Amino acid sequence: MFRNQMPRYEILSADAMATLDAGWRRLVSELGVEFMSQRALDLLGQAGQKVEDNKVFFDPEWILEQVAKAPRSFDVQARNPANTIHIGDDMMSFGAVYGPPFVREGEVRRDATMADFRNFTKLAQSFPTLDSAGGVVCEPNDTPLDSRHLDMTYALATLTDKIFMGNVVSGPNARDTLELASILFGDGNGREVGRERIEQTPATISLINCNSPLRWDDRMLDALFEYAEANQAVVLTPFILMGAMSPVTIPAALVQQIAEALTGIALAQTIRPGCPVVFGSFLSNIDMQSGSPTFGTPESGIGLLCTGQIARHFGLPFRSGGTLTSSQVPDAQAGYEALMTLLPTFLAGANWVMHSAGWLEGGLVAGFEKFVIDAQIVEMLQHEFTPLEIDEESMAFGAHEEVGHGGHFLGAMHTMERFRTCFYRPFLNSSDNYERWMRNGAKDTATRAGEIYKKRLEEYEPPPLDDAVRQELEEYVVRRRAELGD
Amino acid sequence: MFRNQMPRYEILSADAMATLDAGWRRLVSELGVEFMSQRALDLLGQAGQKVEDNKVFFDPEWILEQVAKAPRSFDVQARNPANTIHIGDDMMSFGAVYGPPFVREGEVRRDATMADFRNFTKLAQSFPTLDSAGGVVCEPNDTPLDSRHLDMTYALATLTDKIFMGNVVSGPNARDTLELASILFGDGNGREVGRERIEQTPATISLINCNSPLRWDDRMLDALFEYAEANQAVVLTPFILMGAMSPVTIPAALVQQIAEALTGIALAQTIRPGCPVVFGSFLSNIDMQSGSPTFGTPESGIGLLCTGQIARHFGLPFRSGGTLTSSQVPDAQAGYEALMTLLPTFLAGANWVMHSAGWLEGGLVAGFEKFVIDAQIVEMLQHEFTPLEIDEESMAFGAHEEVGHGGHFLGAMHTMERFRTCFYRPFLNSSDNYERWMRNGAKDTATRAGEIYKKRLEEYEPPPLDDAVRQELEEYVVRRRAELGD
Repeated sequence: MFRNQMPRYEILSADAMATLDAGWRRLVSELGVEFMSQRALDLLGQAGQKVEDNKVFFDPEWILEQVAKAPRSFDVQARNPANTIHIGDDMMSFGAVYGPPFVREGEVRRDATMADFRNFTKLAQSFPTLDSAGGVVCEPNDTPLDSRHLDMTYALATLTDKIFMGNVVSGPNARDTLELASILFGDGNGREVGRERIEQTPATISLINCNSPLRWDDRMLDALFEYAEANQAVVLTPFILMGAMSPVTIPAALVQQIAEALTGIALAQTIRPGCPVVFGSFLSNIDMQSGSPTFGTPESGIGLLCTGQIARHFGLPFRSGGTLTSSQVPDAQAGYEALMTLLPTFLAGANWVMHSAGWLEGGLVAGFEKFVIDAQIVEMLQHEFTPLEIDEESMAFGAHEEVGHGGHFLGAMHTMERFRTCFYRPFLNSSDNYERWMRNGAKDTATRAGEIYKKRLEEYEPPPLDDAVRQELEEYVVRRRAELGD
Repeated sequence: MFRNQMPRYEILSADAMATLDAGWRRLVSELGVEFMSQRALDLLGQAGQKVEDNKVFFDPEWILEQVAKAPRSFDVQARNPANTIHIGDDMMSFGAVYGPPFVREGEVRRDATMADFRNFTKLAQSFPTLDSAGGVVCEPNDTPLDSRHLDMTYALATLTDKIFMGNVVSGPNARDTLELASILFGDGNGREVGRERIEQTPATISLINCNSPLRWDDRMLDALFEYAEANQAVVLTPFILMGAMSPVTIPAALVQQIAEALTGIALAQTIRPGCPVVFGSFLSNIDMQSGSPTFGTPESGIGLLCTGQIARHFGLPFRSGGTLTSSQVPDAQAGYEALMTLLPTFLAGANWVMHSAGWLEGGLVAGFEKFVIDAQIVEMLQHEFTPLEIDEESMAFGAHEEVGHGGHFLGAMHTMERFRTCFYRPFLNSSDNYERWMRNGAKDTATRAGEIYKKRLEEYEPPPLDDAVRQELEEYVVRRRAELGD
């Protein structure tokens, strides 16, 4: 996995941070936050917070006490230990797009299917820059709604040996995720052994979104209870499109984001002190003329940089960023908007980066070509955010003596010794001269990306999995599907 | 013009800077730098530097004394004072692509013409984010080689009222640029008055490239003498594609860049102490398999960030960056590679940004669609690099009271009061929903960019220019063209 040892780019002054700090305290104590779950309200009330109807009015100091119980960083284990990730500190992990109901390949945009889901999962397995296929890489619309979480989790567990995200549609869905993970990590020794192992070191990470502004909904909270009780990682994420789910000023969105994320984290720590949590951020803005969500905007970039600084202020790992774009197709806008988010993601040092590959059309579409494009830019930035080694030898004084004034270094000994590894070599970008590019079919980037994902799928080989474990997973899926009545 | 008040992103430690500092000193004193101009050799010899054949072995301390004579920042005046730029400090100015022999519009790639040159110049005038059309926006291949600098300078002086770059092909070409600028700034009072005015405040900025490694060629130096003597701004620029014009290690390229830029600047300060100079950087790398130049690479991004820090270390304004790409067409790669250079350009706080609009295919092509795409991303970043105001009011506590938990802010009073200006509105990006986008013709970004540049050219109106001045410019061009024998 990638370690970002470059400096963090921080743009908030101490004064600005103090103002934001006063802001979230005022929100949680004076306006309060709604929890649409009696269990949550009871628990927070028992912990001494003031509860009125669905609203909880918090003591900010109590929130900070809970936040302090959360680990600053933690592992999420993969069934292949080489793919285990560490969330927090300098580490950055990357998961694929999450949630799109549609897919695009080439000129075709259509409903996503389970076959698409499997293909994206295979692609995530095949790109070493990606640490996870994520969770809902796309919505498999051709599978029954009540049991598709079983199909998705089974696919994630078998087609990749990387970490995966848990289902959060309901408490029972979360329990199914935990059961499947327990089978997988039981490794033939039974579900109980597996459950112990994943409670020891979390094996899932799950996205708990806030229904912003200032409301946590019941189904997400039910899932939160399941995961937190099982010591699984949860990402408490305010879902903010400024102008719709928050006021239009960035500072207001930031304080709302803090209030929402910290109250969710405080609840998680009340459920199980010390459980692994991530300060989540999904922050962009709408187009104020059309109401459309927009991505890769200047405002979202600023918000992202601030969010990193804020999460560090609270000593928490954070989730943000990705390769977001509003563009309908994998064109120039898709390219620069993706980087408008992804480069600040690296500058801010986001620890868990969802939506790192495949996001298109405001997140409504998972794009196959876009997936490859994004994997490319993630890899480029991983190389860019690797510190230089500057020492006497790297000055290459001898190479100058060898080449002389006005000469060229192409055939120099110094070059020959290093030419294979000295520069990063992209797999998608073309720097062919015009004649060669024409001869090769004048393919633009999306066309080349299309060829790459098809080749990757052809060459895909499933990671090894014990037959007994696979069978146990299958039996669980079959049984639960029947119980769920599909 | 744009003021970048965001922090600079600096990645070199004090130790690293000290190592680089020792490196350039060793290069200039032990290996020396070639100057293919007797005038330059004589001047540097008279100033006490050791000259052997074409090589000058420098005393690094003497170089720093010369560098200290250069202004830390200065104005370049435009004939419309509102378009005068300030180079240095927090200021960033943006010029169009410089040098391509070809153009691309849509599917057509062909030799550039004078008509293209004029059209790009008009586009540069029409985008307020651009401070200049630059100099050689494209090579007008249909005009005689010996006199095309007259046509280009005339077009820059008449079709825009922004600052422009001087011709550097030869000393006489530079003199022609100065004469034309003197006529323009004489403003009807004669060329002598104009010459005085531009010597008072430079009216041109010119690109003096080093023939890297470690050689300054005669024609560029002849132009340098003309401009420096006339107190015109010069950008002393090592032209480095790592692996070809420098060793393959980034630190080696950085010390070479310092050695080249500083020796050029020292010469300029010897010609005319106090003349305005810019620390230039054009730094990328080749593909080590094909030998092709590549742009928007991780290595170039790192180099750019270091360059800013180095230029500030020497107290000099600096030139770097742009919207560079290797891509042959304005596709996804063109979008993300452009931003791979342009975002570090802002992070580094480059003062003079050449190649900010239109660069395609490694700089061989000026692209009309790419021009619009680049103008868009420059404008987005100008908004992103504008500090937030964080105060009590920006917290928008009242908006939360108005909207309530789980509500939306679309119709809130707080929103209504701010919706026109709260977020940056792009002119090119689409966030249309799929149905609307299809209804509008399913146009990708390049297609929309093509529509925009055509509309801009239709709507173009030349900035006002005194008839007498225009006539004097024309007469000069006609006379000199005849003298040059075309």
